[in-house]
Amino acid sequence: MWVLRPWTRFALLVMAHMLAMGLGAVVLQALEGPPALQLQAKLQAELAAFQAEFGACLPHGALEELLGTALRAQAHGVSSLGNSSEASNWDLSSALLFTVSILTTTGYGHMAPLSAGGKAFCVVYAALGLPASLALVAALRHCLLPVLSRPGAWVASRWQLAPAQAALLQAAGLGLLVAGIFVLLPALVLWGLQDDRSLLEAVYFCFSSLSTIGLADLLPGSGQGLHPVIYQLGHFALLGYLLLGLLAMLLAVEAFTELPQVCAVVKFFGVSTPETAEDQDGIVSQDELALNNLPPATPASEQAPACGQVSGDCM
Amino acid sequence: MWVLRPWTRFALLVMAHMLAMGLGAVVLQALEGPPALQLQAKLQAELAAFQAEFGACLPHGALEELLGTALRAQAHGVSSLGNSSEASNWDLSSALLFTVSILTTTGYGHMAPLSAGGKAFCVVYAALGLPASLALVAALRHCLLPVLSRPGAWVASRWQLAPAQAALLQAAGLGLLVAGIFVLLPALVLWGLQDDRSLLEAVYFCFSSLSTIGLADLLPGSGQGLHPVIYQLGHFALLGYLLLGLLAMLLAVEAFTELPQVCAVVKFFGVSTPETAEDQDGIVSQDELALNNLPPATPASEQAPACGQVSGDCM
Repeated sequence: MWVLRPWTRFALLVMAHMLAMGLGAVVLQALEGPPALQLQAKLQAELAAFQAEFGACLPHGALEELLGTALRAQAHGVSSLGNSSEASNWDLSSALLFTVSILTTTGYGHMAPLSAGGKAFCVVYAALGLPASLALVAALRHCLLPVLSRPGAWVASRWQLAPAQAALLQAAGLGLLVAGIFVLLPALVLWGLQDDRSLLEAVYFCFSSLSTIGLADLLPGSGQGLHPVIYQLGHFALLGYLLLGLLAMLLAVEAFTELPQVCAVVKFFGVSTPETAEDQDGIVSQDELALNNLPPATPASEQAPACGQVSGDCM
Repeated sequence: MWVLRPWTRFALLVMAHMLAMGLGAVVLQALEGPPALQLQAKLQAELAAFQAEFGACLPHGALEELLGTALRAQAHGVSSLGNSSEASNWDLSSALLFTVSILTTTGYGHMAPLSAGGKAFCVVYAALGLPASLALVAALRHCLLPVLSRPGAWVASRWQLAPAQAALLQAAGLGLLVAGIFVLLPALVLWGLQDDRSLLEAVYFCFSSLSTIGLADLLPGSGQGLHPVIYQLGHFALLGYLLLGLLAMLLAVEAFTELPQVCAVVKFFGVSTPETAEDQDGIVSQDELALNNLPPATPASEQAPACGQVSGDCM
């Protein structure tokens, strides 16, 4: 074990994250800079060609004004293309998808409230709904953890594995199952249904939905002039996928955070004071307040009891 | 206490959530349906007027084609308006904002990768980076919880409050502090800096960023032709705001999840088996497996020990 002071380890972890963010930015810049510039150049060439060809009969700035209006409308999800009989923006399935994307913090952004009342409602709705969602998630964890444990216990007893190994196997199995059923399979289905999207793009969309990152650039069905019924069914399918998939993702994450190996890593980086049962309350008594003011004499990993003895969940 | 079976309570909680999602959708539909239709009508009227006035000199479909190209480009964050000397899409500050929005699962969506390599990189980057972020968050919790507890302990000893009351006061105080410093104050600053946005819209943006919902319709500075240096500084300011604000939000949420009152609510709805220390491991031994198969004879709230004795964090 490293003999670094606990705060040094933690600082290293933070700096590693900053570095990872910077490296990711540099890589994406290298990958995406040229294509974006090319698209921009292509777009401007088209604009220039259009102006050159037809500019004579258009008053100065009329085209820019029209483009501006269309682009701003799109930013709020109102499309200027397609026939006018297409489903309204805020039909029930779309509105439901929007509220679910708020409560799950996915936030696709393909639609956004226009009115002040709508914006205010979103803020209040999220401010009240997100804590409630957290409570639901916590209740789900309480309910489903024992159910999750049974396969692991069965495997452990069949193959005489140590609990730690069985836990790792169980978590890995659950992770693969979730990735297969909720990312790969839906991506394959999406890929089959859509002509103009690749499998990678389908995987990208499914993954960004289930991780709650929520990038809507590849939201299926956008701007394709689908039949309204199919459009609505598609929205409901997406809704069901989001809710079930997020639940599955939650369980997989839960299985991993319970792993002793993961707890060990977290404790290695976390600067923890001696973990007594009262200390876990979050309110420290006056005696312990005095105790906390002493600098930690030994590395945190030696002070903390083995993960699982005081609290099964160290994350 | 209700004498309902535990699973009934849990089912009621789930149904309440479904109902809340549906109600939110209906309210938003009522609030947003008309404005969206109005904008759509206005847009189509402008298009029709444009066609009527200048359609004679434009070949059939040329305008739609141009609009389509411009709109699709905007979906990937490439703007067709503004002068060509504006900062490139994927300059370092924008790329950083994108990677941070991925790692924090905020996912604004105002920019999105165009190339297959970029998309693949995003999936892999998120798949590796999100667990690492979770570990960082867990380590942060270990470090910062004792620091958080000290004001509460001081208040508790000064005013002779019971620990539960002091915890509630502390959590409420922290919540108000975070809301004030990280939502209201930045919103006021944004409001002052931007002419065309209201205070509500600034609050809406700040709140959607810190809750990681990430709706980019009101991302400051978009499409305003700002000076490149100001544009980049703005991005870095937004970056700093996101990271600090999310950290503050995390601490506030942590303070609330530690509350005995919240734990009680979660246990009321959660179907929990007897909480022994080994049970918290997530791996259930064969003996306990048999025990788990017995139907819970008493409501879960009577079986579970008081929150804080076994595990301080029940969420």
